[in-house]
Amino acid sequence: MKIGLITSGGDAPGMNACVRAVVRSAAQNGLEVIGFIRGYEGILDKDYTVLKNENVAQIIQRGGTILKTARSKRFYEREQRSLAAENLRSLGVDSLIAIGGDGTFTGADLLQKEHGFKVVGVPGTIDNDLFGTDYTIGYDTAINTVVEAVDKIRDTALSHDRIFVVEVMGRDAGFIALRSGLAVGAEAILVPETKTDMGRVLKRLEGRRKSKQSAIVVVAEGDEFGGAEDVAKAIREKYTDREVKVTKLGHIQRGGNPSAMDRVLAGFLGVGAVEAVVKGVSGVMVGMQHKNIVHVPLKNAIKHHQDVDDNLLRITEMLSV
Amino acid sequence: MKIGLITSGGDAPGMNACVRAVVRSAAQNGLEVIGFIRGYEGILDKDYTVLKNENVAQIIQRGGTILKTARSKRFYEREQRSLAAENLRSLGVDSLIAIGGDGTFTGADLLQKEHGFKVVGVPGTIDNDLFGTDYTIGYDTAINTVVEAVDKIRDTALSHDRIFVVEVMGRDAGFIALRSGLAVGAEAILVPETKTDMGRVLKRLEGRRKSKQSAIVVVAEGDEFGGAEDVAKAIREKYTDREVKVTKLGHIQRGGNPSAMDRVLAGFLGVGAVEAVVKGVSGVMVGMQHKNIVHVPLKNAIKHHQDVDDNLLRITEMLSV
Amino acid sequence: MKIGLITSGGDAPGMNACVRAVVRSAAQNGLEVIGFIRGYEGILDKDYTVLKNENVAQIIQRGGTILKTARSKRFYEREQRSLAAENLRSLGVDSLIAIGGDGTFTGADLLQKEHGFKVVGVPGTIDNDLFGTDYTIGYDTAINTVVEAVDKIRDTALSHDRIFVVEVMGRDAGFIALRSGLAVGAEAILVPETKTDMGRVLKRLEGRRKSKQSAIVVVAEGDEFGGAEDVAKAIREKYTDREVKVTKLGHIQRGGNPSAMDRVLAGFLGVGAVEAVVKGVSGVMVGMQHKNIVHVPLKNAIKHHQDVDDNLLRITEMLSV
Amino acid sequence: MKIGLITSGGDAPGMNACVRAVVRSAAQNGLEVIGFIRGYEGILDKDYTVLKNENVAQIIQRGGTILKTARSKRFYEREQRSLAAENLRSLGVDSLIAIGGDGTFTGADLLQKEHGFKVVGVPGTIDNDLFGTDYTIGYDTAINTVVEAVDKIRDTALSHDRIFVVEVMGRDAGFIALRSGLAVGAEAILVPETKTDMGRVLKRLEGRRKSKQSAIVVVAEGDEFGGAEDVAKAIREKYTDREVKVTKLGHIQRGGNPSAMDRVLAGFLGVGAVEAVVKGVSGVMVGMQHKNIVHVPLKNAIKHHQDVDDNLLRITEMLSV
Repeated sequence: MKIGLITSGGDAPGMNACVRAVVRSAAQNGLEVIGFIRGYEGILDKDYTVLKNENVAQIIQRGGTILKTARSKRFYEREQRSLAAENLRSLGVDSLIAIGGDGTFTGADLLQKEHGFKVVGVPGTIDNDLFGTDYTIGYDTAINTVVEAVDKIRDTALSHDRIFVVEVMGRDAGFIALRSGLAVGAEAILVPETKTDMGRVLKRLEGRRKSKQSAIVVVAEGDEFGGAEDVAKAIREKYTDREVKVTKLGHIQRGGNPSAMDRVLAGFLGVGAVEAVVKGVSGVMVGMQHKNIVHVPLKNAIKHHQDVDDNLLRITEMLSV
Repeated sequence: MKIGLITSGGDAPGMNACVRAVVRSAAQNGLEVIGFIRGYEGILDKDYTVLKNENVAQIIQRGGTILKTARSKRFYEREQRSLAAENLRSLGVDSLIAIGGDGTFTGADLLQKEHGFKVVGVPGTIDNDLFGTDYTIGYDTAINTVVEAVDKIRDTALSHDRIFVVEVMGRDAGFIALRSGLAVGAEAILVPETKTDMGRVLKRLEGRRKSKQSAIVVVAEGDEFGGAEDVAKAIREKYTDREVKVTKLGHIQRGGNPSAMDRVLAGFLGVGAVEAVVKGVSGVMVGMQHKNIVHVPLKNAIKHHQDVDDNLLRITEMLSV
Repeated sequence: MKIGLITSGGDAPGMNACVRAVVRSAAQNGLEVIGFIRGYEGILDKDYTVLKNENVAQIIQRGGTILKTARSKRFYEREQRSLAAENLRSLGVDSLIAIGGDGTFTGADLLQKEHGFKVVGVPGTIDNDLFGTDYTIGYDTAINTVVEAVDKIRDTALSHDRIFVVEVMGRDAGFIALRSGLAVGAEAILVPETKTDMGRVLKRLEGRRKSKQSAIVVVAEGDEFGGAEDVAKAIREKYTDREVKVTKLGHIQRGGNPSAMDRVLAGFLGVGAVEAVVKGVSGVMVGMQHKNIVHVPLKNAIKHHQDVDDNLLRITEMLSV
Repeated sequence: MKIGLITSGGDAPGMNACVRAVVRSAAQNGLEVIGFIRGYEGILDKDYTVLKNENVAQIIQRGGTILKTARSKRFYEREQRSLAAENLRSLGVDSLIAIGGDGTFTGADLLQKEHGFKVVGVPGTIDNDLFGTDYTIGYDTAINTVVEAVDKIRDTALSHDRIFVVEVMGRDAGFIALRSGLAVGAEAILVPETKTDMGRVLKRLEGRRKSKQSAIVVVAEGDEFGGAEDVAKAIREKYTDREVKVTKLGHIQRGGNPSAMDRVLAGFLGVGAVEAVVKGVSGVMVGMQHKNIVHVPLKNAIKHHQDVDDNLLRITEMLSV
């Protein structure tokens, strides 16, 4: 029994820790692991490497992924997936562990349905936008990266009495914006999930002018009002006497050494994925719910985006007054 | 209605974020907050400061506690607690929010029982050794501090092919050792909760000599086999050809800017504590269980130490092979 | 004898450490220090605070400046400077220590010439673009911030085989770009001081495609070819098969806890500035050259921008092959 | 012409950046580089690897050394050095670049004298205790590591009003203690180069009790008064009412990603070492003095330890009041 392993989609800190966990627990279960390079592309190109314990030494602390990753457009095509199935079979691989997000799981689900492979997904994305797991691998690190960056920006904001609008990742979801905004003590947080009331944001900033001159506004890139530039423009129009600056944190949010929590989570889910394969479970994502490893059908993980935690919204609102 | 607020016992990163959350949510509820300096000592000495929103600006990211903290021996005496009660009443304070651990909660519980104060505890300790909350404020930061330190040590261990024995905090509990050990990929982790089988540890180190020369052993200071020096001695006796080095991480584990997770947790629990006071709840610790704020009787939080998560033990064991 | 103290222009990490050093060494010399808020604005508005040793405790490690800072347009006007002189005299201040860059020193020089104040400048700017000092306060921290950010970006670049164009601060000077580019091992570094040969940059990237897929290009914002977007566009046009991403690091470069080197430099220059005042020296910037504190006429510090170190250019060129 | 390359003695952050610089600039000069593993041990054991550009990709940011390092006792023996010479010749190696400190240079010097090899030393040690270079590779990173650690300890010290005695590396020299002590604003700094007057230290701590309760004392491990434990004991005896805690930073000071400055220095010196070899220079250490690459006879670099900078001592004394 051989397991194929890929990391796919956007890279996330902790993917390497998860690769290590898969390889080590597979070895303990007497299973061989074949790592394909650049996600589904590596399966299509038969670009792979056999992964043994020694190949995953000293990677637990590294950002990115030693298996490299890609968003494979080819894999959207049915005939390409047939080629993938053929390639996997020719290598003796009968099950696939896929670390990634939405697109990765969609591909895995099709591979299972069309060609009968056992597939297990592991949530690896900084966006935390999968249903059925409390956290995705990479999310905690990304939040910490944002928090450290905004702590630095706060120094400058305070020294100059400026308003900073900071744009963070999140095209469809405000998970990064909400938690990091709460953690930095932002005066306002704008997320796609709730309708932005710019009048209210402006009022809040007005209210803060007396006690504290500077302010931080955190905006998810996908907020329906617009990005950081649009928000800054709206603030500048109202408060013409104030300096309003924009910072888009961009790709630093994806990198960096994984946080302790992401490494632990990666360990749990990597082991959980191998155990699922051993048990013959297929078509699921392994996730963490509270302290338990759970199995969630891939299509559920994908289709139902996580709702924003109401408690988080409420407390964020209360503390950003 | 006035709330007294203390931070007490060992300081923990995130205490300031929690003080901020208490003050801000109290203000929204029309409550005044009086912060006592150095925990119970400040109540006994009438050393306090009125805390308003402006007093807690720019502290969310700071380690330590602006209210200072102490382990008050005086407060163990019944007559001193009577004095404390008198002092609190003279200031119009009728409820107390106490951020800390075991000792802090014991004191709060007695204050309630003996003098009828409403008391609410908030778990603030790097040790994570309270029952009824998934995490305590400061724990995640401490783990990350350990992980960053051991990542550095690993550089040296690798370059010199050395065995390092790293001692981390945990007199009675292995929470810090276990999670950080898993996160750094330690070859062995020794905790007070399980009987250390040194023969097995040595065998594991032996096994690793072929594929990887260096090794990291993480030891909780309270492990029943002994501290890092004892463990190093045992290893040196067996492997006389190897350099075995000891590092005790010590007090750096208590400090530093709080992690994102600790700041978010501090926000939830600070708001939760004020809401408990408003609702008239008393004699409880507010904790987080999964995504919910819960109330746990103080005596339960104290008496039943958290058990080590079996999943964590199992996975740690598996991945440190 | 009273010393006025300002931080002015863009904030820089280490300004607080320098404020502390000025206040402490002034106290030892029996001098009183009056800190004006927001640079020259505070002098014009008589917004100030008396600074004693206890006011500068616990600030050595903080980014930004407790005195706040601004770019004062009013101070460009001769009559406003007369008002400033009047305000300073009414407070008994007869000398001014000004921590900042170009604009700050220009203002100080005029104050001296027009009104006879003793003025001493301290180089505090992340840009390192002053003549007569090896380094300016804040430069080393900014470089380290860039390096840590690009290390994270490299994780992602490697995982996706991408080319990243990273824009760093430097409107007129490539000091930040050159040193940080060398430190991250950038494949190309574009600075205003040298004419950018895009054909050569493209050739270099081409050359690297065989051995290493990803690449980092560091661009100073003021490069005459254009900013990061322009550079990325030129690369995309040539290598249509490659993903080329842009990250502008922006304001995170100004903040953060100062590096050890910046704190030490701030200590030397703060003490040096007070000693200059005590000796009656005026119209100079105190700078570090090798291990010596030197005095450079303000107009020289301003007028002659530092040349880029030829050795640095040569070695950067050699190692980015 | 083939160059042998070793890293030897205690590892230091930036050694990898220097290995990269040597390999890349050698390649540009048409020279082959043979990297021996574990310093002189690798030469004796003929344990080596040919280093090409691709072998040094992605190491500029890594702590430790990919060539591994050791303190070779065998190499002290003349006949072993003859074996080394024979091994080098059999591989066609006629010159050696040795990155390390005292012991490393002593060995290189003997190899040159006894067997006529061209040898060039590169100062790579966190201790900064070599004569003829302003800084050694690794020193700046070590200082920053100490500073970050003490910043954390300061949080706890402040919160508990404690005195902390922090022991840093430096058996014979106080370079790390002095600069890091200045950078953290230590109340007292004890170094081997100056006679410790404990009465004066105690008086200084006494003086600070009024304005600030906590205090940080930085002690170089080799201070003639004793280590941190001895210093703490002396303080405890005098101030029985105060909590005095000890932290020995230990091996975290050796590891970690190199700072920007160490990477830049490593680049300069790596290129400089190859250029020295090309020019036929031998028996020297390449060092940086101000902004120039210089050649210092190996025996001078070793025999005359750097004196402590008087300016640094004076300013440290002034600011720790």
